[in-house]
Amino acid sequence: MNLFASLPDAGAAERIDQLLTRPGLRVERIVSQGQASPPGFWYDQPEGEWVLAVGGRACLRFADEAAARVLRCGDWLDIAPHRRHRVEWTDPSVKTV
Amino acid sequence: MNLFASLPDAGAAERIDQLLTRPGLRVERIVSQGQASPPGFWYDQPEGEWVLAVGGRACLRFADEAAARVLRCGDWLDIAPHRRHRVEWTDPSVKTV
Repeated sequence: MNLFASLPDAGAAERIDQLLTRPGLRVERIVSQGQASPPGFWYDQPEGEWVLAVGGRACLRFADEAAARVLRCGDWLDIAPHRRHRVEWTDPSVKTV
Repeated sequence: MNLFASLPDAGAAERIDQLLTRPGLRVERIVSQGQASPPGFWYDQPEGEWVLAVGGRACLRFADEAAARVLRCGDWLDIAPHRRHRVEWTDPSVKTV
């Protein structure tokens, strides 16, 4: 199976596919195309999230950091449980995976 | 941090870096450049392994399958615990990540 095979059109809505689920673990493919978190919205997740960008561009902001971070292909990030964060933007011109 | 930043020279030996360790979970970056499992050797791991190729080419064989599988960028594979497998080859001309 290939992560880039039949990439969904995510122009209308972000698309999440679960590739693997195990007790205590999920591997997901998230495809975005221009989506962002609503103004003032912050994710506050009970579970940790390890993110790897494999295509496109996404801008993430942590509540406890002044500067936002732009993730490009190969960039990875470990988001600790309950560390508040939001998606500032994703590139509308490409599919961000 | 970027997965492709300062890729090590793996010509002499495969290089494994642990990116994240949690109870029951490891995220590793494996860089190979021409390595293969020794003749007749099979991995038989107690833990499951989810593999994603993000660059290069690697050829994997399962003991219970006739044909080997070539993994290229984006290809992923879920290797169940104790499913015997070996690395037939990795591309000697590029770094396989």
